[in-house]
Amino acid sequence: MNGAESLVKTLLKNDVDVCFTNPGTSEMHFVAALDQVPGMRCVLGLFEGIVTGAADGYYRMAGKPASTLLHLGPGLSNGLANLHNAKKASSGVVNIVGEHATYHIVHDAPLTSDIEGLARPVSHWVKTSQSASDVGQHGALAVQAAKASPGQVATLILPADTAWNDAGKVGETLAAPEPQYVPGEAIDAAAEALREGSKPLLLVGGDVLRDHNLELAGRIAAKTGAVIMTESFNTRLDRGAGRVQVNRVPYVVEAACEALKSFDTAILVGSKPPVAFFAYPDKPSLLMPEGCKLVTLANIEQDVTQALEDLAEALGAQATEPAGLAKSRPLEVPTKGVIEKQGIATVLGALIPEGAIVVDESITTGRGFFPTTAGAKPHVWLNNRGGSIGFGLPVAIGAAIACPDQKVIALEGDGSAMYTVQSLWTMARENLDVTVLVFANRSYNILHGELTNVGVQNPGPRALDMLTLDRPNLSWVQMASGMGVEAVSVNDLGQLAGAFKAGLERTGPFLIEIEM
Amino acid sequence: MNGAESLVKTLLKNDVDVCFTNPGTSEMHFVAALDQVPGMRCVLGLFEGIVTGAADGYYRMAGKPASTLLHLGPGLSNGLANLHNAKKASSGVVNIVGEHATYHIVHDAPLTSDIEGLARPVSHWVKTSQSASDVGQHGALAVQAAKASPGQVATLILPADTAWNDAGKVGETLAAPEPQYVPGEAIDAAAEALREGSKPLLLVGGDVLRDHNLELAGRIAAKTGAVIMTESFNTRLDRGAGRVQVNRVPYVVEAACEALKSFDTAILVGSKPPVAFFAYPDKPSLLMPEGCKLVTLANIEQDVTQALEDLAEALGAQATEPAGLAKSRPLEVPTKGVIEKQGIATVLGALIPEGAIVVDESITTGRGFFPTTAGAKPHVWLNNRGGSIGFGLPVAIGAAIACPDQKVIALEGDGSAMYTVQSLWTMARENLDVTVLVFANRSYNILHGELTNVGVQNPGPRALDMLTLDRPNLSWVQMASGMGVEAVSVNDLGQLAGAFKAGLERTGPFLIEIEM
Repeated sequence: MNGAESLVKTLLKNDVDVCFTNPGTSEMHFVAALDQVPGMRCVLGLFEGIVTGAADGYYRMAGKPASTLLHLGPGLSNGLANLHNAKKASSGVVNIVGEHATYHIVHDAPLTSDIEGLARPVSHWVKTSQSASDVGQHGALAVQAAKASPGQVATLILPADTAWNDAGKVGETLAAPEPQYVPGEAIDAAAEALREGSKPLLLVGGDVLRDHNLELAGRIAAKTGAVIMTESFNTRLDRGAGRVQVNRVPYVVEAACEALKSFDTAILVGSKPPVAFFAYPDKPSLLMPEGCKLVTLANIEQDVTQALEDLAEALGAQATEPAGLAKSRPLEVPTKGVIEKQGIATVLGALIPEGAIVVDESITTGRGFFPTTAGAKPHVWLNNRGGSIGFGLPVAIGAAIACPDQKVIALEGDGSAMYTVQSLWTMARENLDVTVLVFANRSYNILHGELTNVGVQNPGPRALDMLTLDRPNLSWVQMASGMGVEAVSVNDLGQLAGAFKAGLERTGPFLIEIEM
Repeated sequence: MNGAESLVKTLLKNDVDVCFTNPGTSEMHFVAALDQVPGMRCVLGLFEGIVTGAADGYYRMAGKPASTLLHLGPGLSNGLANLHNAKKASSGVVNIVGEHATYHIVHDAPLTSDIEGLARPVSHWVKTSQSASDVGQHGALAVQAAKASPGQVATLILPADTAWNDAGKVGETLAAPEPQYVPGEAIDAAAEALREGSKPLLLVGGDVLRDHNLELAGRIAAKTGAVIMTESFNTRLDRGAGRVQVNRVPYVVEAACEALKSFDTAILVGSKPPVAFFAYPDKPSLLMPEGCKLVTLANIEQDVTQALEDLAEALGAQATEPAGLAKSRPLEVPTKGVIEKQGIATVLGALIPEGAIVVDESITTGRGFFPTTAGAKPHVWLNNRGGSIGFGLPVAIGAAIACPDQKVIALEGDGSAMYTVQSLWTMARENLDVTVLVFANRSYNILHGELTNVGVQNPGPRALDMLTLDRPNLSWVQMASGMGVEAVSVNDLGQLAGAFKAGLERTGPFLIEIEM
């Protein structure tokens, strides 16, 4: 058994059975091992950002890590941006990065680079195996690191000779670390702050955004009069009719400060105090009002479910009807009308099917979708915690692989979708059940606002030229068709509704270009 | 004057007047400064690998660095792979990477990351400005670093407040460092080794591959009976009829060893001893035969022109007719025939126009193009020194911006072209004079050979599935059209010749999908 085979066996033994790949020569033994050791589902991406983003989406929906297979330093480099997003989302990922044979590195061949140096900024755990006999054990440690609570990015670097040499040993099964227990003092402090606060806020994140935990938060809110909010961007938010509705802190600093200004107490559960996405001249970085009392019930490393259960008990709220349950709100599907944001939100709110997974990289277009979609059928909303653009389509791939029986809906700005446009080919190849909506406003629209935000009042033609995606306009129908994904272009709300219904009814990828 | 304006002025003062950009919020002041300070040509890419690869291609043809504008750690991450290639090619690049305002970093907003850590593996020079008053001086130092001999990658990280604060001072003009002088002892040692060797090799690289230096090398070869060769992949090679013909060390290890086995002496001029691109079980890493005497005349930091002139003089070869001058060899343009490699080479050899810049990322298809194209009209050949795929189309952009009066021909494998396919849009937007040939063999063809090379004899279906790009086939005509580039598909040599002629005759981008 060579090192590569021992690694594939170790991954499978530790319940990692999906590998998103873009391999090269130094990974050929791992690729060959896939036929020697059955059980690993391999999914090819034509660019490494697809591979790492898919692993992020997979973790969010499967609740366990996938592996990635990347080609030396440059392959890892191409995957770094979506690993940054995965790290910020606390998604567990096991990266396998090929490296030159140990004895070859000194010769500085073209692909030689500092792989550990590249990996460290996005990884919680980094190791380079030095012999085939270590590879299995290192693989087990990498999976254990990825399965930490919350999930982590683990990067195992595999010199080619450690893969091809015949001293492989399968690693053991290592237990995943449990989340930390929240002690009684923290529960008591939170309960007291909620009782004493005249206007308390429950600021929730991480696993609090799952159905059962939201219900607990809703009971606590009902009992104490607290308002529930979450950060602007979330890893995974359960929502829809019958679920506790959670509003997000607005992205725009002024709106965020306005939304938060009246709270005198904030209980943090799986969340940090909200900060501005960017700094702007003469605007605050920290969004909570001065003087607001901040009490941490549980941080993201801790057991938020236990904390909420204990807090509900301490408050006598176990049987209280949860506050803020979203009501089912049937919406009329538009049959015609000009394409604008509210109309798109109505189409979504009316048609999102039960169990759908919405991957949201809609940037400016989709900021206001939440109120109108709050009463849609129960669904899951995935957002970008790391801010690195090109997140949406790859995450949609991973979500679709994790949940083949759920419809995935990808909401994409046209600028954003271009960063990882190669995703469409993988969707076609795997016949993934993803309906992609591209909001084709032909610009980096967010940056027009940001120019003003940073104090530029009269941008000139050169500046504006760097923010527009016209000359030429992109044809999403042609690009998607070129990668094997059927697509249509719509410029009317009725057309959009019809195309969206058609996309939802089929099984497989479909793209709708929405001319804005 | 704010920091951003001081930087734009400093760059222009130091003769950096092209900026390849993909900006975000933290770069908005730099973008706004482009209208305040005229003179900077800005070129937008829809993915950062386009931006950095274009800067590489620009340096290779303009002989001076361009700047890039990248959005924090993730924007830099997306550009790293082509910066790796630029570093290996000794291309000078000045990266400007936006960062959160200095006081905002501590709050760990979504886009916060270790930008210096990400930059270091691909950069010779890294600095983060801490105040607006430093930015100009840092910009001047970055340009100076990039203009070193050979070129370097310099990365200047610009926190947003250093860009927007009003304490900007324009940096001075700093002289570019000169290449090191090669002392007489090295000249004498090389001359003696050439006289004594029974079968000497001149192994040349870097600036030796420019017309004038090749002529000197040719005179020395003629005088001493030495053979001239260069590494498998070169930054820039002047070639074609009337120029000294240089053969490359073959990529495949066995072929390389065979080509080099008879040499007893190798004189290194701007080159290192050739090493295998990858290690393989039971194959050597170092390609020169054991016992071959290696003598370094000049390394890549040194003045190779002076070294060759001095060596020619020491050998009395100043007026010797250069060896290996390529003869003009008119080839008949095929009017029909099955598409195969030799036929494609004939089309190229017959039609490459004078002064053309060939960017070669043809991987397996193009390995054998050199003999047939050696007698084409004088042209320049750019290859990938770093091995990171996705190099070709962005480098073609940079070359076309640097040399608007020269035709650029991009030779692309289909797998390779997909990594940075967004390049096509920039070619359309800037109406760049690039003819793109995509060799659509629907696979990572090189990896089929590499599976065998690493010792995998009977790859199974899962392994082979990771190497094929069918299911679905990519339509390059549709993808190119979707990004505004006119394209045709050909499946016959006559069609290819006709389409290639048509591409060469127009001014502007054109793509030919060659079904293999």
